[in-house]
Amino acid sequence: MTPAAGFTLGELAATLGAKLEGDPGRRVTGVAPLEAAGPEQISFLIDARYRPAAETSKAGALLVAESMSGLPGPLLRSSSPQQALIALLTLFHPAAAPSPGVDPSAIVARDARIDPTASVGALAVIGAGAVIGPHVCIDPLVYVGPGVEVGEASILHARVVLCEGVRLGRRVTVQAGAVIGGDGFGYVFDGGAHRKIPQVGVVVIEDDVDIGANTTIDRAMLGRTIIRRGTKIDNLVQVGHNVEIGEHSIIVAQVGISGSCRLGRGVVAAGQVGFADHLTIGDGAVLGAKAGVAEDVPAGERRLGIPALPILQTKRILAAQKHLPEMSRRLRAAERRLAELETRLGITPGESREPGSADDRG
Amino acid sequence: MTPAAGFTLGELAATLGAKLEGDPGRRVTGVAPLEAAGPEQISFLIDARYRPAAETSKAGALLVAESMSGLPGPLLRSSSPQQALIALLTLFHPAAAPSPGVDPSAIVARDARIDPTASVGALAVIGAGAVIGPHVCIDPLVYVGPGVEVGEASILHARVVLCEGVRLGRRVTVQAGAVIGGDGFGYVFDGGAHRKIPQVGVVVIEDDVDIGANTTIDRAMLGRTIIRRGTKIDNLVQVGHNVEIGEHSIIVAQVGISGSCRLGRGVVAAGQVGFADHLTIGDGAVLGAKAGVAEDVPAGERRLGIPALPILQTKRILAAQKHLPEMSRRLRAAERRLAELETRLGITPGESREPGSADDRG
Amino acid sequence: MTPAAGFTLGELAATLGAKLEGDPGRRVTGVAPLEAAGPEQISFLIDARYRPAAETSKAGALLVAESMSGLPGPLLRSSSPQQALIALLTLFHPAAAPSPGVDPSAIVARDARIDPTASVGALAVIGAGAVIGPHVCIDPLVYVGPGVEVGEASILHARVVLCEGVRLGRRVTVQAGAVIGGDGFGYVFDGGAHRKIPQVGVVVIEDDVDIGANTTIDRAMLGRTIIRRGTKIDNLVQVGHNVEIGEHSIIVAQVGISGSCRLGRGVVAAGQVGFADHLTIGDGAVLGAKAGVAEDVPAGERRLGIPALPILQTKRILAAQKHLPEMSRRLRAAERRLAELETRLGITPGESREPGSADDRG
Repeated sequence: MTPAAGFTLGELAATLGAKLEGDPGRRVTGVAPLEAAGPEQISFLIDARYRPAAETSKAGALLVAESMSGLPGPLLRSSSPQQALIALLTLFHPAAAPSPGVDPSAIVARDARIDPTASVGALAVIGAGAVIGPHVCIDPLVYVGPGVEVGEASILHARVVLCEGVRLGRRVTVQAGAVIGGDGFGYVFDGGAHRKIPQVGVVVIEDDVDIGANTTIDRAMLGRTIIRRGTKIDNLVQVGHNVEIGEHSIIVAQVGISGSCRLGRGVVAAGQVGFADHLTIGDGAVLGAKAGVAEDVPAGERRLGIPALPILQTKRILAAQKHLPEMSRRLRAAERRLAELETRLGITPGESREPGSADDRG
Repeated sequence: MTPAAGFTLGELAATLGAKLEGDPGRRVTGVAPLEAAGPEQISFLIDARYRPAAETSKAGALLVAESMSGLPGPLLRSSSPQQALIALLTLFHPAAAPSPGVDPSAIVARDARIDPTASVGALAVIGAGAVIGPHVCIDPLVYVGPGVEVGEASILHARVVLCEGVRLGRRVTVQAGAVIGGDGFGYVFDGGAHRKIPQVGVVVIEDDVDIGANTTIDRAMLGRTIIRRGTKIDNLVQVGHNVEIGEHSIIVAQVGISGSCRLGRGVVAAGQVGFADHLTIGDGAVLGAKAGVAEDVPAGERRLGIPALPILQTKRILAAQKHLPEMSRRLRAAERRLAELETRLGITPGESREPGSADDRG
Repeated sequence: MTPAAGFTLGELAATLGAKLEGDPGRRVTGVAPLEAAGPEQISFLIDARYRPAAETSKAGALLVAESMSGLPGPLLRSSSPQQALIALLTLFHPAAAPSPGVDPSAIVARDARIDPTASVGALAVIGAGAVIGPHVCIDPLVYVGPGVEVGEASILHARVVLCEGVRLGRRVTVQAGAVIGGDGFGYVFDGGAHRKIPQVGVVVIEDDVDIGANTTIDRAMLGRTIIRRGTKIDNLVQVGHNVEIGEHSIIVAQVGISGSCRLGRGVVAAGQVGFADHLTIGDGAVLGAKAGVAEDVPAGERRLGIPALPILQTKRILAAQKHLPEMSRRLRAAERRLAELETRLGITPGESREPGSADDRG
């Protein structure tokens, strides 16, 4: 996919808006990690942890931050090296433009409307009344249910399922295997059995949302589950019915969000976090990995732990916990010393109990 | 999908067995959430948390519990409002009856038996010897393996996989992407490599079970993995080989159940709970969110925490934990005071250790 | 699938290298669990927990360890009973050899190379330039992306997705629904929105790796995500971009491994473990169920807890935690006794604070 000819460092400096230290005529033909790069490739050092690898790298050039010092060889210095890296990778790996049109093996409902610039892959199924926008790319074996709308330039990777009535905005990317619009998990126990509450709402995904592989987003019981503009969701995440996630949030892999939660704008939920149902999580809140969120979180708060508490509080508790076995011994010793003092002073020693010697659940 | 004409409140009251306060001739054309409902729609107030939204709702009528007081406007009062809600939603959103027959693009093995009232969607694959019962609905891109049996009126949503020999009862619903009958995870280390134990058992799903999107239920090593009648399983749940789940249990999203566990009847496992292998969980046991269940749980017990303990015990521990940093300081202060007293009384002060100043792992 | 005629115990003893106690001419026609086995079936007792079931089993014979004593009836004694069980199950349930060839309903790119001994199932899609090795078995509805390589005798179960450029070694088994090679989760916030870092690397799966149902393994941002020889991965596991997992490791269901982690050889991660990003986990490390691994783990270490600590330390902390509510009460009592002693000796009592009566976060 990489143009064989590659680019000169001078061309790259100009395109990336970077400052070149080295020969502008030198040519590189690809991007590679520090350890793997050879003299014909460019690599990068953005995370300072990798500095040793950068020092021994055989790369023909390095993309680095402006302030990075003491590295030999040709450097491309950028004031925003992460953005420059995105540009560099895009330059060498331009996204393949799928050819427009519907693969003859796809099964498309007669009344589905597919923009002529869209691409529908082999054995995809497009349901009745679905509307597929311009430049949409639908991979093989995707299922688009009846009445679904997919906005301009969205990408559905292989085997994605969009159930009936789901609406996707523009430039939405859904990784393989994700299921959007399955029924929410709502039952009423009637004394003998769990009776299902019909799940008749929809899912709305706004513009520029990314959704990870095998993630599941349930349709609303009534109304809509909504993922707002710019939010990025990782793999194997569960989003319950009637959830709302605000703009530009980050939901890391294996997070579970129970029904009717409202997450604000710019929320960050790290891996394996769980949210109880009906919670309100304020804008910019940050939930640490594996947190068990059992109550509302105000805007801007950072929470950690099970149950999730303010992060500093949890860190203090965890630090103290490490000494808990020792505290237990010290408490026993203090009680012995107290008893000794009390005896000396003619007081009947206090009736402290030993752990385990009595019911400690009272 | 909603009949344009809708229903009058009088018709609804009669159908739902509800008591009407308001004009029986007033007509509503749909159900909507409190915030979204307009005068032509009916909404509902069952969870008292939403009372403020009910008070400002523009809904043309509200379904409420008999005892609910102080709400204006037309009311439908029901003695079992949740059941009435199910009826109401079903009335306005009747399940679409798929047309019977096999889509010409489906690939059906010659000796598969498909009831003429069943529906098989586009690009579904039905393996050799499979038996599909009356009124079964199989969505597009579903894979039904060889020898699988699917009972009457079951629904397989898009892209479900039923591996070889899996047996589903009647009225089973499987959401998109679930995999039933994958190999269990069983290996023997022979000193050099992990050798796989053949997984030659099956999975049996009884009547009225629901299974969530992208959930995985492994086949038994030998014998069967069994999900009993009426149990409801949410999305992204893992059920290991040879597990048995009793009737009418509730397994919430992202729960993991290790091999050979036996869960009783009416067990509730909240989100992200994990069960170690070979456990016996009694009837009606309740496991709180994220619990790590490491030992058997007697019938009717409620457990919480990692590891899971009786819920009251865990709550007391969690409450005490919040004060742990303070307890640590107070213990140090008490030790200083003890030393002071001991000095005054001419005793050599006790040899208590400061946290961190010595090995606290002994 | 079982040969109707079955095998005599004498034949089994010879094949399994076991010592027979009983009639070598007796014939069994299948393997069954202890409770379900009848006189025509052989069962096994390897895990001593099942001894009571073995004693009442109606099985026609039992496979047991050499040292097992006191069991009636025909016994096949093996010095490695687990290996013998594998052989026994394989004997009665030989893996079905799929017939070679490409199903006419599969969609195969013109320039894909498929070995004539490979089998490609109904409605599978094989992308441009893919290379499918000898005796590979590809089930229905599988998606093999452009440029993918699948090594000899690998098995892709129904609906697996291998994204562009993924490389599988020999004898790799992928359970249904797994997604290998989805984009990694990498974004840079530019002040207004999260901008995606192109994920242009690949995934390499070495020989003899097993991958579970609906598991997701992301492609590298650059370079490769690699799962080394002999490693076994369970269902619903998340493997982030640029992760490396060493040989013969065991990754149990619902584990999450964040980007750029390096797990060594023979690592065991129990169910629902989570790894923070960029960690190095040494050879043979063992992570207990639900552990939250937040820092590097040296080779051979066993860790448990959230955050994960050496297992003995965590166990001591958990044991002490059970007594925490009682410790809190005893500390209060000790403070009262101290105050009493101080009063007696004319000292102003220490200023200890009651829990909850003041800010305990300072």
